[in-house]
Amino acid sequence: MNSFLRSFITEWRKLQLPVAGETFVVAVSGGADSASLLLALSQLKQKKKLELEFVVAHFDHALRKESGKDEAFVKKLSVKLGLRYESEKWESRAKNKENLEQSARNARYEFLGRIAEQYHVAGVLTGHTINDQAETFLLRLLRGSGIDGLGAMKPVRRLNDVKSVLLVRPLLNWAQRADTEEFCRSEKIKYREDPMNRDEAFLRVRIRKQVLPLLQDINPQIVTHLAKLSSALREEGEAAELAAQVCLVAAIEVNKDKINVKQLTGLPAAVRKRVLRLWLSGLRGDLRRLDMKHFTALERLAFSGTGGKRVELPGGEIVTFSKGRLIFKKTKVEKRRAGN
Amino acid sequence: MNSFLRSFITEWRKLQLPVAGETFVVAVSGGADSASLLLALSQLKQKKKLELEFVVAHFDHALRKESGKDEAFVKKLSVKLGLRYESEKWESRAKNKENLEQSARNARYEFLGRIAEQYHVAGVLTGHTINDQAETFLLRLLRGSGIDGLGAMKPVRRLNDVKSVLLVRPLLNWAQRADTEEFCRSEKIKYREDPMNRDEAFLRVRIRKQVLPLLQDINPQIVTHLAKLSSALREEGEAAELAAQVCLVAAIEVNKDKINVKQLTGLPAAVRKRVLRLWLSGLRGDLRRLDMKHFTALERLAFSGTGGKRVELPGGEIVTFSKGRLIFKKTKVEKRRAGN
Repeated sequence: MNSFLRSFITEWRKLQLPVAGETFVVAVSGGADSASLLLALSQLKQKKKLELEFVVAHFDHALRKESGKDEAFVKKLSVKLGLRYESEKWESRAKNKENLEQSARNARYEFLGRIAEQYHVAGVLTGHTINDQAETFLLRLLRGSGIDGLGAMKPVRRLNDVKSVLLVRPLLNWAQRADTEEFCRSEKIKYREDPMNRDEAFLRVRIRKQVLPLLQDINPQIVTHLAKLSSALREEGEAAELAAQVCLVAAIEVNKDKINVKQLTGLPAAVRKRVLRLWLSGLRGDLRRLDMKHFTALERLAFSGTGGKRVELPGGEIVTFSKGRLIFKKTKVEKRRAGN
Repeated sequence: MNSFLRSFITEWRKLQLPVAGETFVVAVSGGADSASLLLALSQLKQKKKLELEFVVAHFDHALRKESGKDEAFVKKLSVKLGLRYESEKWESRAKNKENLEQSARNARYEFLGRIAEQYHVAGVLTGHTINDQAETFLLRLLRGSGIDGLGAMKPVRRLNDVKSVLLVRPLLNWAQRADTEEFCRSEKIKYREDPMNRDEAFLRVRIRKQVLPLLQDINPQIVTHLAKLSSALREEGEAAELAAQVCLVAAIEVNKDKINVKQLTGLPAAVRKRVLRLWLSGLRGDLRRLDMKHFTALERLAFSGTGGKRVELPGGEIVTFSKGRLIFKKTKVEKRRAGN
């Protein structure tokens, strides 16, 4: 068996995905990544390694004249492989390029969700590779993300909050873009160039065409390294979150709206911040409208030693400091509002 | 008072450094960063904000013909400011450029340590800025560092393991390179160009001249952002280390050479790795010659569920798995060797 197929089925088992009796949606743009994903699935089905049904889904962003050719290519490939095919053409209402990228993404995932529901599938498969992982890391780094935002994409997660459908990226942990191109060539499939790849106004394309080549010239292993680093960052974030949970339990009083500040002294700042976030999210239900400035104010209130002051939170709650405790209160105004 | 001086004295107090009765070594290369550091200290002394003694120390790397001019500039400036001046010329024996950079750094710090000892100083001051923080982050990122290696430089640390002398970077948290250049210009001091800045064979110079300008073109705030991110990474690493300490205490048996694997199940992978590192470093005294492959083998031994296997560590120790416990043993051979 071809080494691409071997790596593919190994990863599929490692991710403990079903090997029979289920249907999956395969998201295919027509680029090498998603075309190789589709080809691999089809071949593993033929070889009876995967006894699954696949529905090919193509979302036509309709941002360029030639997008119809991508659609035709994916349709033809699906027919050739004997697979069901669904597509949708997007009508954009977004104003500027940055919004466009995000809206296109939202519309695509919405479409995939609809197809997933229609066919009662176990999951949606996408062709993201190690390169996408590294590019996403740099994209977020350049947009100013904090640590949590730099954590890696997971190979398996829920597609959305509502349904139990999985979003699975079977190539993410092992395949580089060059591997997917090589596999397509070896299968004599002339994949389409990634439609996004031509417009340098998209930050991702600048990263792919300018930033990564410069970094690779300095360190040829940088793509793999950035992908590993972002995975390590996700793990590290989970670790800090665990530490915060343990510390919150230690600091919380019988009444959950009080925490003992003494228990937080001496904690690493990263844990202290997370403890405060967990505490407030537990009491408020979420962290909506809270930002860095509220947490900085809380830190000052707790550790400046000057009691009597208070921090007002959006939504009308207040936090006061008294006798070494931070105390959370919903104000009367807020309660009245909540009652309406 | 000039805003550079105001920011400087604010940071000095924030770092809780002594303001009277002590002597500090000021490391000055002659570039804008260290020249502005020296000028600020001298002016704050004149204004009696800092009643301290300063010894200027210049290390001549002697890697270029003009290095003598840097030395002459620093000497002249010190005399003009009425400060003691010490310098040393380096005799290099390093072979290639990469080694050269590291050896030069070692020789410089050794020299600074000697001057510090000679004058019984409280600390050595260097002119590192936010830009150095960002460049160091990118340097390590490009060299393939893991999370711990990407953590920020601290504004205050011990100069070396042996002595109680501090290494202090008073500009690190707030000054950009442009600020130091501006302050020198406003003081009519013609600083020297950073001697390292001319040789693109040095990775740091490529980062400064190629990588950072490209990233700044995408995000003008990237220098500050990378510096903040590396500080957050250091805090996050400290948080994960704390979580690991707590978890190790929970997992350890009466005999410290046994840990209960059940206590580690379900922990984030980042914490689990740190727990194993802490456990072994406690038992062995250090982590010398242990690398990633040993920890991966230990993880497999602990969580694969197949008892009876063992992991051999360099130095002859072994770790076995039995009844849900990891057990550390020094082998007889090792004990005999240790006895010789």
